[in-house]
Parts: sequence; structure tokens; C-alpha cells
Amino acid sequence: MVVELVSVGTEILLGNIVNTNAAYLSEKCAGLGLSCYYQSVVGDNAKRLFDTIKTATERADIVILSGGLGPTEDDLTKETATKVFEKELFMDKKIKEQIQKYFAKRGTKPTDNNWKQAMVPEGAIAVENDNGTAPGIIMEKDGKRMILLPGPPNELIPMFEKSIVPYLEALQPGVIYSKTVKVCGIGESKAETMISDLIANQTNPTIATYAKTGEVHLRVTASADTEKEAKKLIKPVVKELKYRFEDAVYSTEEDVTLEQSIVELLKKNKLTVATAESCTGGMVAARLVNVPGVSDCLKVGYITYADKAKRKLLGVRKGLLKKKGAVSFEVAEEMAKGAALFSKADVTIATTGIAGPDGGSDEKPVGLVYIACNVKGKVKVKECHFSGNRMKVRESTVANALIFMRECILEYCNEMEYTRQGK
Amino acid sequence: MVVELVSVGTEILLGNIVNTNAAYLSEKCAGLGLSCYYQSVVGDNAKRLFDTIKTATERADIVILSGGLGPTEDDLTKETATKVFEKELFMDKKIKEQIQKYFAKRGTKPTDNNWKQAMVPEGAIAVENDNGTAPGIIMEKDGKRMILLPGPPNELIPMFEKSIVPYLEALQPGVIYSKTVKVCGIGESKAETMISDLIANQTNPTIATYAKTGEVHLRVTASADTEKEAKKLIKPVVKELKYRFEDAVYSTEEDVTLEQSIVELLKKNKLTVATAESCTGGMVAARLVNVPGVSDCLKVGYITYADKAKRKLLGVRKGLLKKKGAVSFEVAEEMAKGAALFSKADVTIATTGIAGPDGGSDEKPVGLVYIACNVKGKVKVKECHFSGNRMKVRESTVANALIFMRECILEYCNEMEYTRQGK
Repeated sequence: MVVELVSVGTEILLGNIVNTNAAYLSEKCAGLGLSCYYQSVVGDNAKRLFDTIKTATERADIVILSGGLGPTEDDLTKETATKVFEKELFMDKKIKEQIQKYFAKRGTKPTDNNWKQAMVPEGAIAVENDNGTAPGIIMEKDGKRMILLPGPPNELIPMFEKSIVPYLEALQPGVIYSKTVKVCGIGESKAETMISDLIANQTNPTIATYAKTGEVHLRVTASADTEKEAKKLIKPVVKELKYRFEDAVYSTEEDVTLEQSIVELLKKNKLTVATAESCTGGMVAARLVNVPGVSDCLKVGYITYADKAKRKLLGVRKGLLKKKGAVSFEVAEEMAKGAALFSKADVTIATTGIAGPDGGSDEKPVGLVYIACNVKGKVKVKECHFSGNRMKVRESTVANALIFMRECILEYCNEMEYTRQGK
Repeated sequence: MVVELVSVGTEILLGNIVNTNAAYLSEKCAGLGLSCYYQSVVGDNAKRLFDTIKTATERADIVILSGGLGPTEDDLTKETATKVFEKELFMDKKIKEQIQKYFAKRGTKPTDNNWKQAMVPEGAIAVENDNGTAPGIIMEKDGKRMILLPGPPNELIPMFEKSIVPYLEALQPGVIYSKTVKVCGIGESKAETMISDLIANQTNPTIATYAKTGEVHLRVTASADTEKEAKKLIKPVVKELKYRFEDAVYSTEEDVTLEQSIVELLKKNKLTVATAESCTGGMVAARLVNVPGVSDCLKVGYITYADKAKRKLLGVRKGLLKKKGAVSFEVAEEMAKGAALFSKADVTIATTGIAGPDGGSDEKPVGLVYIACNVKGKVKVKECHFSGNRMKVRESTVANALIFMRECILEYCNEMEYTRQGK
């Protein structure tokens, strides 16, 4: 079944608020196996709203509208949606009572325009709103359905979870199931080239790629009569992807981030970590601290943006800073070593680079970054060249530092494994 | 002139990402005096994309498309938009060279599909992308215009600011001129109440408020025949806003961020700074490092997420940690003092809090945060209660730490001024 989202509100068109409702509803609908081909945003204007709803009902089986259910004259969604389905509005006594109760509870009285919210289209289901006065509405005509939800996320989300999800589940014949293979350190183009044969021949399941800085997520989606069947369809594809991308796959779990997979890797191998950051100024550590419970392995972070801090906190030699410059292979190396010496952490990661916009030269241009990683005394240094503005260079550095750290830890673990097996 | 936004990407329809580009573009277009009546989202499907673009070009003067300019087969925006305008695509040698350079700089080679990005519709303007390989496109047909932008916000925003804003400004009769009064430490509702009389009576200039974590931006926009006239209209309103919000105004410059205003304040008063972070894990320092040239005042940052690090690096007493807990008024105070002692910085800022999801108790719930700021030996501590998930709590902490630090520095400066004047 096909669903379409229509968000109503001039504040979205003016950019005053971000349309997080649409993201929430899209994700929920995808999870329920509904296909969504269009989302629209339209303001509180009767003609444009009518046209948008009309078009949506022609294209989709279910149209979910959010916003415009308030008590003011601006709020037109219910009235307009009712017109599109050529119905009439009636006062719903139960809703009227609920509104009275809602205000009584707060020790205030409803204003006249609040009764507008008790009007319900003929034959429609009024959905209780636990967190506000506007009820949701579900209505149907000739096999087409409209679901009207209040705009505030703290009303919309609980209503959707409690009442709309069960309603939509009951409409569905089969299930859609997805699994995401998360890859790091490989660009989107290269990743797609590596699986172009799989993509070319895909029907069910399908593979879609999503790129983010330093990562590519490969989402495998299957539809089937039961979840069990869908999972069975997905399994060999996920296996093949894991085979092709080997160690670059850091997770196949929906909610596991790169930093989380690194923290898990550290914990599993009983390793502690410390950071020593120059150009990233704390961003690498902040990523690790995204993970709850990181205190078990994160010993300390040093932010040594100034040369003096590099010397004092990490023991980088003054002569070396002078001779090679703060942005150099050697200084990165000493930063990682110094961090290990002073923190006693097993793994240390150091960044130093020219983030710009100033400070670049022909020899050392903006975007030149060195990342050093020390695992139990073995230090590796990577030279990188990033483009973009100051923030872009720093974000690329953070992603690459995490990926590099992960590679170094994996290498160490493999060596340990090799030694243990006595080979 | 009427603008319409079309966002292209299956990841938006699936709810994998929130459509922040649409909010950004809407806000910018409103600021430029363009009316926006519709926003749409459509996936990477040739037929639906064609229909959506076609409809948009019929309804609006300017259609701004974002996303779908990548190198893969999925990316159809340019090809489809070109078809709607009945044009052909040609290889643009300049863009091809730029792509070659982009990859050469990284020491890698473009894959075959990267050349797709060098194709430009006949008669179109290719807009340079400083942060990626996909150029933007501006094209025109029979008085209708399309502007194609890359999807990643870190490519879209700089391109829009640098190249699209001047292009759109040049299309407008008369001028629209805006100035933004940036306020920190005051909530949006309170800010609106403080200027409700100004908002109620506004015609030209208008005042619009935009809220972001810890900040409210008051955008004053005037339209006039010349820039000089528009500026003249804006001047008294900006003056009034500065009068009402006093010290809470940190800038009236478009490109000055809160952290930048703080770094300028530090430099102006020849003060150095150091950070000591627990729950924010480097995010406060990272904000300061957003500012180029921060090395003049940022001495060092300590990330002391673990208790042991608080003791070792900042000298927080073991007994105090045990007695009061890491998240306490007293520990925050000692962190700020310790950071000052060890770094010799004039200003130190410390954060410690329960970011969740675990670690909360009845006495100390998730969201409880202490922020301490020391300016030249005088320490102040602030207790905060934030809501939301782990990231939200940490982001609120960062914003409030910066605002608190700014207040403490201003207070110190005012006292100095007072002393100097011999009062």
C-alpha cells in the first residue's frame, strides 16, 4: 500500500521549524511496509491545501496529514480534507466532553473556537489525543483513506504509536523487513562499483546505498508474507555484502554507530583509549562520548591546539615542533606516543592538521592532516588531504581518525590471535 | 517572486534523514523576500521526479532542487530537470578538470561514474562546489528558473551562501535587506513577549524570530528601492532590539557565531581560556576551535569523563568525588579551579552532568548538569536541568556553558571597568 504525507503549516514554509514530523512518520511507515513516494508541505491556504490533498488522495491509498487541527481560523486541515472527501462535519458529543474535561483539569475554560475541534466528519473515527485538545481523524472513501494528526510532535507521536500504528498494521497484507550493512573507510562510488552486479539484478530484496562522512550504509529490504520469510530472503544478501566488504563492515545493527562499534571493540579486547587532538579540538573524544558507558575505556582526552599544550601535556619536543612544524608526520607520532606515556592508555589517537581558512602554504596546504594511532606501543601515521571549509576538513578528520583507529585495533587483535594460535 | 522547493532522495522518504535542507532554504528564501507556497519530497524515481519538477515549474517562478546530484545511477535530478526544460546535457571541461583535481589532491582516482557529474545542461550555469564533486546548476527557460543543489548540507549551505544568494538577489526588483540581532540565554517565548508590541505593529521592516539551542536570532528585514534606504529603515529597529536585550545580544553580524563572539571577547581583554569537560567530552572545546585563530587564547582542553582523569588532570579530590559524586556542584567547582591551576588560563569552564540514558537516580536524574566557570580566581557554578536524549542533554550543556562563560567574562570586564573608573 502506498502512503503519502502532507504537512500543513506556514511555519514550515518559512523555515521557522524543521519538519521532523515527516521524518518520524516516514520512518514509521517504512517500518510498517508502506511505500511512500511523495511528501508535501503546504501552508494554511484553503485553495492550495485542497489541491494538495486532492492530488495526494489520487496518488496514494492512505494520506497522512499533520498540522492545522488547532482551534484558530487559520487551521483548515479538517475542513478542507472533509471537502475533498465530499463529506459534512458534525459535532461529536464525546469529543466535546473530552475538551471540557481537558480544560477543567487545568482549571481553565475553553474559548468558543475550541468547539471547532469537536467537529468530526460523518462516518469518521475520532482518535483521542492524550496530550492536547485536537482529536485525530481517520476517514475513508472509496477505498482511499485519510489520517489527520495534530502538528505538535508531543501530541502527534504518542497518538501515532497508540492508535494509528495498530490501525495501519491491520490494513496490511504482508511485511517489509530491512537490514543495514554499515561500511566505513570506503567511498560511495567505490562501494557501489563493488556491488554493481548485485544492484543491477535486484528485485526482492533490494539494496540501497546511503553515504555519510567516511561511511556507506547498504540497506537491504525485502517484502514477504511473514517476517520470517522476509528475513530468510535478506540473509544471503547480507552475508554476501559482509563477504565483499570484509573488515570494512562495522555493524549490521540498525542503532549501532561507528563510535559504538569502536567502543565495543575496545571493551571486548580490554583496551583503554585516550585522545590527543589539535585541529579537531575535542571532536574525536566527543564522538566516543556519544556512547553511553564509554567511561569504562576512555581514560582521558587532551586538547592541544596550541603548540605549548602539545609540549606540556604530550611531551612533544620543542625542537621537533620548530623543525617539522606542528602539522607534520613526526609531531602526530609524538602526540600519540606522548598521550600513551602520560595516560597509560592502550590505544591513543592523535590529530594535527591545517583546517583553514588561514595557515596554509604551498608545501602544507589547507586540508593537510596527519592522524597517528598508537596501539600498545606500535604507532602508525596517516597523511590525509581533505577539501572544503574549516568544519568540513575537521569532520573528515574525525571520521578518518575513528576509521583509522578501528583499523589499527583490528590489526593488533588479528596479530594477537595469530600469536595465540602459535603460527 | 514565488519559489518552490523540491527535495530529492529516497532516504528522506524512508525517514532515514530529517529534511533540514528544506528548513534552511525556506528561511533563506523568506529572508530574500521570496514567497514559498509548496515544498515537496520525491524519491530517486525518474517518472515521479519528472512529474514533481514539472508541476513545480508550473506553479513557481523558481524551483530549487536539492539532492540527487551524486555520481551513482540512482542520482537522477540533473538528468530529469534537464528533460523537463527540454534541454541536452554536455560534458563541461572545466568541471571535469575540477573533479580530476579533487581526486588528485586526495591521491585517488575518479571512478567512471564520477564523470557523470561533469555533464551540464546546455546554456546552464555550473556552480562551483567547494566541498564536493557535484557542481550546482542554474538553468532558465521561458522566464522560469531551476536551481539544482547537492544534497549534503555541508555542500549545499556554502554553495547557497556564496553563489545562489547573489544570483537570487540580482533577480529581485528593489532590494531586501536584513540584519540579525543574535541573542543568547533567553528563550524564544520570552524573547517574543519582550518585543510583542514591535511584532504586532510591524509592516516594513518586519521582525522574525528563529530559535536554536540557547539562542534566538531576531531577523529584521526591510524592502526598499535601494540598499541605503533599506538600511535606514532597519537601523532604529536594530537599535531598539539592542536596547531591550542589552548584554544578551552577542552580535548583529550575519556570520558571527556565539563562539566567535566569545573568542573575540577573550582576545580583546587579553584573556586565555581552558576547558575541563566530563559529559560534553570535548564538545565545548570543539565549539571554540570552530573559530580560526583560537590558538591565541585557547591554552588547553581536558576531557575528564572518567573520575580518575578528574583527579589526575584536574586535582579533584578523591574524597569529594566519593562524598558528593562526580555530578555535583562541588566537583564542577573543583574541576574549574583545577583546570585554572594546571593550565594557568585566566578563564576556565567545566561541565559535569548525567547525559543518560543510564546513570540517573531520583536525587540526580538524567539531565542534571553542573557548569562551573572560573575567571581569574572567581568561580561561579550553575545547576541546570535539561530534557531529551543523551545528545540533546549534551548539546544543551554546551550552549549553556558557552553562554555562562560569556556572562562571567562580561561581569569580570564590567568590574574591571568599574575599578578603573575609581568608583
